[in-house]
Amino acid sequence: MSTVTPAADLESDPRVKAVFDDIRATRKSDFVNNMWRYLAFDPALLESTWAEVKAVMATPSTLDPLVKELIYIAVSVTNGCSYCVHSHTAAAKAKGLTREQHAELLSIIALAGKTNQLATALQLPVDPAFDADRN
Amino acid sequence: MSTVTPAADLESDPRVKAVFDDIRATRKSDFVNNMWRYLAFDPALLESTWAEVKAVMATPSTLDPLVKELIYIAVSVTNGCSYCVHSHTAAAKAKGLTREQHAELLSIIALAGKTNQLATALQLPVDPAFDADRN
Amino acid sequence: MSTVTPAADLESDPRVKAVFDDIRATRKSDFVNNMWRYLAFDPALLESTWAEVKAVMATPSTLDPLVKELIYIAVSVTNGCSYCVHSHTAAAKAKGLTREQHAELLSIIALAGKTNQLATALQLPVDPAFDADRN
Amino acid sequence: MSTVTPAADLESDPRVKAVFDDIRATRKSDFVNNMWRYLAFDPALLESTWAEVKAVMATPSTLDPLVKELIYIAVSVTNGCSYCVHSHTAAAKAKGLTREQHAELLSIIALAGKTNQLATALQLPVDPAFDADRN
Amino acid sequence: MSTVTPAADLESDPRVKAVFDDIRATRKSDFVNNMWRYLAFDPALLESTWAEVKAVMATPSTLDPLVKELIYIAVSVTNGCSYCVHSHTAAAKAKGLTREQHAELLSIIALAGKTNQLATALQLPVDPAFDADRN
Amino acid sequence: MSTVTPAADLESDPRVKAVFDDIRATRKSDFVNNMWRYLAFDPALLESTWAEVKAVMATPSTLDPLVKELIYIAVSVTNGCSYCVHSHTAAAKAKGLTREQHAELLSIIALAGKTNQLATALQLPVDPAFDADRN
Repeated sequence: MSTVTPAADLESDPRVKAVFDDIRATRKSDFVNNMWRYLAFDPALLESTWAEVKAVMATPSTLDPLVKELIYIAVSVTNGCSYCVHSHTAAAKAKGLTREQHAELLSIIALAGKTNQLATALQLPVDPAFDADRN
Repeated sequence: MSTVTPAADLESDPRVKAVFDDIRATRKSDFVNNMWRYLAFDPALLESTWAEVKAVMATPSTLDPLVKELIYIAVSVTNGCSYCVHSHTAAAKAKGLTREQHAELLSIIALAGKTNQLATALQLPVDPAFDADRN
Repeated sequence: MSTVTPAADLESDPRVKAVFDDIRATRKSDFVNNMWRYLAFDPALLESTWAEVKAVMATPSTLDPLVKELIYIAVSVTNGCSYCVHSHTAAAKAKGLTREQHAELLSIIALAGKTNQLATALQLPVDPAFDADRN
Repeated sequence: MSTVTPAADLESDPRVKAVFDDIRATRKSDFVNNMWRYLAFDPALLESTWAEVKAVMATPSTLDPLVKELIYIAVSVTNGCSYCVHSHTAAAKAKGLTREQHAELLSIIALAGKTNQLATALQLPVDPAFDADRN
Repeated sequence: MSTVTPAADLESDPRVKAVFDDIRATRKSDFVNNMWRYLAFDPALLESTWAEVKAVMATPSTLDPLVKELIYIAVSVTNGCSYCVHSHTAAAKAKGLTREQHAELLSIIALAGKTNQLATALQLPVDPAFDADRN
Repeated sequence: MSTVTPAADLESDPRVKAVFDDIRATRKSDFVNNMWRYLAFDPALLESTWAEVKAVMATPSTLDPLVKELIYIAVSVTNGCSYCVHSHTAAAKAKGLTREQHAELLSIIALAGKTNQLATALQLPVDPAFDADRN
């Protein structure tokens, strides 16, 4: 059950096919997950979203590929995005996430959720020492 | 402006003093930030919260200390916790966060915020391939 | 699976029947969706909620009926309310939402989610020019 | 700094004056807080919001007035609404909230924030025993 | 469908068995719900989470056990945590929540969600009278 | 107070200057707000963010420019992003938002916040009629 309906033959649209081919080549896998299959209802949105995901997540950079997935999971859990929690946990496992790291990730996400609530409930004033303009 | 008022001489309470001493020893710094100064309105809550933060964030583990801070920041930004964004960004910088890594962290947090919205707006069905019970 | 159980014959309660009749008359349709069927577990809550929805959403006003649905969807996506995303996307389509408009709505919701994260991560000071008291 | 500007003499509008008078009478206090002073930019919105707050929060019912404030604070903290955390914590104190109860409220809000994150990160299947239709 | 897979014989791990035994003894019931069955993928995380839930929720304190559940539900609804809404609504019913109280709880949670949005949209300045440092 | 520090002479960087010049030309105004001044700490992030904002918000499309701002405000309020609520409310006023429309926008955002809470608290099953695959 979703809010748009994927076409029966998605890849008959050359723009969609080009993105799907690039997803497969980038990931070295035939699998194209539902995020892309449903975004294809609008080829321009599919193209721009994939271009950004590829640039941020699949390009060598200053952060390790697994670390990037951990950050992605942290945001997705906090936003309560079920699909994204599933897809990025699977991606993290594919990139080597161990059971111990998974448990530790959950501990940090849970602790941050807890202390965020405390800080907001207390309405804490920000310490001047934290101001970037001072440092 | 906050919802509780720290006592004038917080450390006259021996339970508070013991936690503050441990914070200073653990962090090798005299600075005790407002989170702990305001939580001290209830010494038991101060003790349990610090014990958990110390165990999760200040104990050697499977994730790098800087990576832990990036995950903490990701949750705090998504929850919109101003105090926590400030305190953990400062902590990440103290642990070596570079300008390039900071920009990359923001790119990932922003992209995740964006694709979370898309996945929720589309109400994407979760791909069976993501089910942990299958793998 | 839900947290309350609708009665077998909901409309045997005259207060529930009156609200359902008004929903059908207002929408010119026999269909009464689950929001109202489950809210009927408390007739007073059903009455006050429907009265507000009717006043805000089904009364001619300064905003176009389709625009109202787009705003409703934007809030519902951001809150991660699955039911509401489904029901208001269906309502928007019934009011004429085109595929192009749907894609554009998603682009804006996604971009706002992204830049909200950036503004919060940067802890941007609000420009004085934005203060309503100055203008 | 806000997004609307209160008029210099708010109570020269008879609809605004009537609501402010009712707020004062209901609360037995001359103080009218900013929520109402800024909502007055639209008298109809002021009237309907106050009518609902009065009906839900200031009318004898099945829940204790202090308990109602604790629930209100829990939602406001989770939504990160600074104004609401301040105003409802003040209201709870006025209704007798003790320091011990305040600390306990924060412990529960923090624990719920934490376990919400865990449940979402694990994508827990709901136990059939929790289904209201079975009970 | 979840992100971790419970072992076939969870209680063959003595640490897991000890926690499950304590859950059963504390709740006077044989039922161990999925939160604990899935958290068992990491016995340390299971132990620390249960210890905290038991201390906060199952120990006599200044707040009534049913009131604690209402606060927990309020946070869980606002975070959109489906599992937690189900489990804590069931827990509240087991502790005596009536239909009238349930409806009233929903009215307060809904009203708080509404006025949180208004306060944020208006960017209300906090009244100085709400400052704890003044009182 | 923010988490990065803008350089004293931002526009001495030609990439920053090019973006700022395009912002001024697009908006026909000399004013460059803080979002862009602080994002300039990373010219690549500044460039990609502005390119997307310009494409989505400042290019003629199927939705009216004012309607786009209303959707942006709805997301920003729900995410509790203070900066974004201020900047996009100011933008909406610059595009002609009337007081009546502003009040109506707030009514819809508040109502959606309220009914989102109700739908989540009830854990409503989605009506099959809302499934896009059926229509």
